[in-house]
Amino acid sequence: MDVLNDEYYMRLALQLAEGATGQTGVNPVVGCVVVKDGRIVGMGAHLKRGEAHAEVHALNMAGEQAEGATAYVTLEPCSHHGATPPCCDRLIKEKVSRVVVATTDPNPLVAGRGIEKLRERGITVEVGLLGAQAKAMNEAFNHHIVKRRPFVTLKTALTLDGRIATHTGHSKWITGPDAREAVHTLRHRHAAIMVGVETVLADDPELTTRLSVPGLHPVRIVVDSRLRLPGTARVMNNAAPTIVLTTESADAAVAERLTSAGAEIVRCGSGSRVDLPEAMRKLGERGISSILLEGGGVLNGAMLQAELVDKLMLFYAPLIVGGEGSPSAFAFRGPEAMSAAYRLHGVKLETYGVDWCVTGYPAWTNSDIDAGLADESSSSQGGS
Amino acid sequence: MDVLNDEYYMRLALQLAEGATGQTGVNPVVGCVVVKDGRIVGMGAHLKRGEAHAEVHALNMAGEQAEGATAYVTLEPCSHHGATPPCCDRLIKEKVSRVVVATTDPNPLVAGRGIEKLRERGITVEVGLLGAQAKAMNEAFNHHIVKRRPFVTLKTALTLDGRIATHTGHSKWITGPDAREAVHTLRHRHAAIMVGVETVLADDPELTTRLSVPGLHPVRIVVDSRLRLPGTARVMNNAAPTIVLTTESADAAVAERLTSAGAEIVRCGSGSRVDLPEAMRKLGERGISSILLEGGGVLNGAMLQAELVDKLMLFYAPLIVGGEGSPSAFAFRGPEAMSAAYRLHGVKLETYGVDWCVTGYPAWTNSDIDAGLADESSSSQGGS
Repeated sequence: MDVLNDEYYMRLALQLAEGATGQTGVNPVVGCVVVKDGRIVGMGAHLKRGEAHAEVHALNMAGEQAEGATAYVTLEPCSHHGATPPCCDRLIKEKVSRVVVATTDPNPLVAGRGIEKLRERGITVEVGLLGAQAKAMNEAFNHHIVKRRPFVTLKTALTLDGRIATHTGHSKWITGPDAREAVHTLRHRHAAIMVGVETVLADDPELTTRLSVPGLHPVRIVVDSRLRLPGTARVMNNAAPTIVLTTESADAAVAERLTSAGAEIVRCGSGSRVDLPEAMRKLGERGISSILLEGGGVLNGAMLQAELVDKLMLFYAPLIVGGEGSPSAFAFRGPEAMSAAYRLHGVKLETYGVDWCVTGYPAWTNSDIDAGLADESSSSQGGS
Repeated sequence: MDVLNDEYYMRLALQLAEGATGQTGVNPVVGCVVVKDGRIVGMGAHLKRGEAHAEVHALNMAGEQAEGATAYVTLEPCSHHGATPPCCDRLIKEKVSRVVVATTDPNPLVAGRGIEKLRERGITVEVGLLGAQAKAMNEAFNHHIVKRRPFVTLKTALTLDGRIATHTGHSKWITGPDAREAVHTLRHRHAAIMVGVETVLADDPELTTRLSVPGLHPVRIVVDSRLRLPGTARVMNNAAPTIVLTTESADAAVAERLTSAGAEIVRCGSGSRVDLPEAMRKLGERGISSILLEGGGVLNGAMLQAELVDKLMLFYAPLIVGGEGSPSAFAFRGPEAMSAAYRLHGVKLETYGVDWCVTGYPAWTNSDIDAGLADESSSSQGGS
């Protein structure tokens, strides 16, 4: 049983935010709980970009009871006029007496000003409670708002010996239904999904979100230097928008045909291959804050080597398939010395049925993570 | 805090046995706790083949207090005259009134007769408490006594993408010091360690047990069809016996030289490669009950395909080294369909510093294991 204290309410606020992950577009997920005299009087989360912030929903629910109450917010209340008025002003107007904030807002338009404004009006503000969790929850938002390119999560299913198919190319299925449901939940939680054209040619995937309840479909991105994507591919259906990343030198007539079929063509660089850093910049500019990268091995390797992968989620099945001639999850030559291999940090293990997921971050990801295996890894173990 | 009950004492008996793992040769590890009127009056474990059994040590400690006491034993007391007299007779003689047994003895010379004998003399006997743990602890013994060949544990350190070296062959180090200490503890716990001659030629390992305290060195086994092992290899030093597995057709003069240098040559089959099933039979006959198989990839693959691997312990480092041209932990072609891949059961995840170990059993291992990820996996998490 959890003890009733500040953390109790902040944890609830984090859960409200967590539930809304994936449905706020480029906006962060935020939760808010308003507490007065030992009772929760308001709860809310930011649910959709352009609509009410978490604090507003919670204060609406609290009504007059907000006066003298404590508000627990997972992210610093905004101080600027965006699509909606500043939440600070609303907290002040409702005469909330204390605000507990998990983490400051990295958005340069806020960045501490919200907290300052509340304090100037005599409201007690405390910052940092469960801050690491709150930051991790918005790792994509925090990355995009600062670096202006999408936060890329590389996801792959693989065998214990690192393979994504047998030597004949057969790959269905590596992981079981529990892991596959988790992957579809990841699709719901990302703005876009990205694959190489080889994957489309080999498997003709639809790249939509398919779960026991309706989910949001990510924008589909196909990396296709030479525009080999057929207009009849399932990824071209109208379930979600489709962006084809190609090069300046790709054939204009083919591009035109794909455009007519509903895809958007984005040219990145004039080399023989798509300029991946430029592609990420362009996608970031158009408001794609997060990408789920679903390989294959060559694209995985290229993105990793370009240091454009910010997080890895490797779903292992307890299978050994043998090495010779079968495709690897990371098809690149790699360093000469083992000490120069890419090392993941903040590693966490989570089980999904008989499979498990290894989550970690490359050295270049600027994230509040532990150096070793996170303690929380145990909490998700032993389920299934 | 553990509640004081039968399980409390049996758990202690299991811990006594666990501690002695590796030092009883072909014998099982067994622990015994004798309890009288709310006090432990005797504790013991079987410590060395040919010497006293667990019950004898514990009863010696208990002295006259054994009369009317309860004895907790992790394995059915023996009923036959081996190197020592039957433990049943001793329990009867000391007038123990109740015996709690974790698991029956698969040894065909015992197999229930011990329990029968005690009951005939009016002693209350209960069987099965923490039986799964007790069986798992002696999985190698149980296997060897029934199948007459060694229980083989395949151990390898590998990267997240299933590699045991970079494309240049560089492999030191993949895992960190915590995982390496665990591996040396495994060496202490196995009767023998086995590698392919390629590993000896590449790394010139000593294959001894090196820890912060002295450990037992396993017998060293080198699989070497064409007798390429140099007499000067470190594995030939006198730290432990060395067995070279080769074929009938291997050169007699070279074999003679290796014999003079201290190795024992065992010829298995007349083909171009060592007949692995015959090798395991011969090693089992000479009392090698357990083998730690430390690869490389080709030998790992061959042993797995011959269904001679009984358990796998894969130590993963959070590294990605790239696929092209680098050696895989399992170098064999493998099946065409993913559904025909080797699937591990009873999978358990344990962390060692920033690394972790995936333990599992192939389908053919006859073991009391769970179908899914074991619940205990959580207990070993989050340490490091």
